[in-house]
Amino acid sequence: MLNLAIIGGGPAGLTAGLYSTRGGLKDVVMFEVGMPGGQITQSSEIENYPGVFREDPPITGMELMEPWVKQAMHFGLKHQMSEVISISKEGDIFKIKTDSGEVEARAVIVATGSKPKKAGFKGEDEFFGKGISTCATCDGFFYKDKEVAVLGGGDTALEEAIYLSNICKKVYVIHRRDKFRAAPPTIERAKKRENIEFILNATIKEAYGNEMGLEGIIIEQEGKIIDLKVPGLFVFVGTEVNNKVLKKEDGSFICDVNENGEVIVDLKMHTSLKGLFAAGDVRVDAPKQVVCAAGDGATAGMEALHYIQEHFDD
Amino acid sequence: MLNLAIIGGGPAGLTAGLYSTRGGLKDVVMFEVGMPGGQITQSSEIENYPGVFREDPPITGMELMEPWVKQAMHFGLKHQMSEVISISKEGDIFKIKTDSGEVEARAVIVATGSKPKKAGFKGEDEFFGKGISTCATCDGFFYKDKEVAVLGGGDTALEEAIYLSNICKKVYVIHRRDKFRAAPPTIERAKKRENIEFILNATIKEAYGNEMGLEGIIIEQEGKIIDLKVPGLFVFVGTEVNNKVLKKEDGSFICDVNENGEVIVDLKMHTSLKGLFAAGDVRVDAPKQVVCAAGDGATAGMEALHYIQEHFDD
Repeated sequence: MLNLAIIGGGPAGLTAGLYSTRGGLKDVVMFEVGMPGGQITQSSEIENYPGVFREDPPITGMELMEPWVKQAMHFGLKHQMSEVISISKEGDIFKIKTDSGEVEARAVIVATGSKPKKAGFKGEDEFFGKGISTCATCDGFFYKDKEVAVLGGGDTALEEAIYLSNICKKVYVIHRRDKFRAAPPTIERAKKRENIEFILNATIKEAYGNEMGLEGIIIEQEGKIIDLKVPGLFVFVGTEVNNKVLKKEDGSFICDVNENGEVIVDLKMHTSLKGLFAAGDVRVDAPKQVVCAAGDGATAGMEALHYIQEHFDD
Repeated sequence: MLNLAIIGGGPAGLTAGLYSTRGGLKDVVMFEVGMPGGQITQSSEIENYPGVFREDPPITGMELMEPWVKQAMHFGLKHQMSEVISISKEGDIFKIKTDSGEVEARAVIVATGSKPKKAGFKGEDEFFGKGISTCATCDGFFYKDKEVAVLGGGDTALEEAIYLSNICKKVYVIHRRDKFRAAPPTIERAKKRENIEFILNATIKEAYGNEMGLEGIIIEQEGKIIDLKVPGLFVFVGTEVNNKVLKKEDGSFICDVNENGEVIVDLKMHTSLKGLFAAGDVRVDAPKQVVCAAGDGATAGMEALHYIQEHFDD
């Protein structure tokens, strides 16, 4: 029987592991199929994780996470490379079904994150993290006074375009329709920005560049081909929350989630199911920043420890 | 007119400054009378800030905050060494009254933190950070398999004593009465721990040690003197929230606070007053950890930026 099962090995899961094991909790296992570190390890530059700063070149996601993983494992956290299939609770005990068998745990922290959806054009994978980004807050500043493109027409796409317009020289917004799904005031604000230009009824065919990164994108607009030379492209075509481990066979969830499938938590990262905590991008209102996920993980780790002390005193 | 006034220069305030200025916001000023860095700079050892890890000796609070301050200022954050006296809102504009005049701002992030209360015995200041701590989560692990003392009789004192009993060989709980203010189930759990020993009707007269740190404490119990040789003492005699900048002349607050004076926020760090955000230990349910304060600061910085974009488009 585990004390605590942590599902996911990104910044949230690792920090939950650090805090719970450093707090003296034994039998804490982090389930992560791949190498621990999370999405951020694919990032070539990070300069907004507080306290870790190198001006030029900025540190990479790998450089950030390497000591982090070491630190998290230092206090007794164990890593199991199994894929978690589902979580259920029977009485006071959670059952974690994995691809290599079932384990029991007294408490669970779900830190499985979310995934930006892909648009599906040629070169999207190749230049991801080398000019193609899904996070303006993270990467916008690297294109200060340069021209960038944004793909998408929803609230996030337009809000991020406005955000980028404060930093970049020019922002092209590429959208496959001539109407936006975003809220009308957001559309108005985007239209008022002089350095935002709309390319409507258009799709991206291809991203191209060299080993240094993205150089431009090929756009098709109503049959016509446009070659847009931009070093940065931000893709906002939706997000998928990695919540499937919380799904029951009947399709409902073991805890409350919102209409986007994000886990509902309070400020202490408690979900609606006692003993189940959520941390990082899988939760509602997640700012999708490494430091925020880490803060969540610390909170969830401390709260899980407290929950176990209270309910299973031994 | 400032875009954003940040009150407080600890991890929360600095991170709010980093995120808002890196997001392209101009005229962002952080008000902090002393050197930026916050309480944590007084800490001699920190090993639970994720990603920044040195095994032996652990890094100091100063070492953690030095690059952090540099990073926060790098994107245009300004530091004003004025003491903020009060904040008020007139129409859409905040007025920040300081000891060197009044400034206006479109949005405000309050990140003034909280202060552990002092017990008032001799040597308490001298050995603070060198054996005397007010945070078991932060410092408990440094006393793994050693004997420590806890001063206090409330919920926090007993919960932290239980936490420490998982890590330390023995935990003495010193309390000035023979009854505890803590919740009955917490008292029961503490009493069940074999390695917790209670020293009741007792007060600490003095903490002593050498330049290496604390060596022991002198306790007076019903007229009798006890010399308790412990390298660690955890003082939990209450917390004071630094909320006075939010107080109006009539004693009420400009935003909702709870019964302890902690600012009520949602997951996005919005307070009940539009344009006012809170981050770090000043808010309700604050886990009082550097990484959590930093996560709050990032969230508040992004939300303030978003608020300004939405309400003052120019």
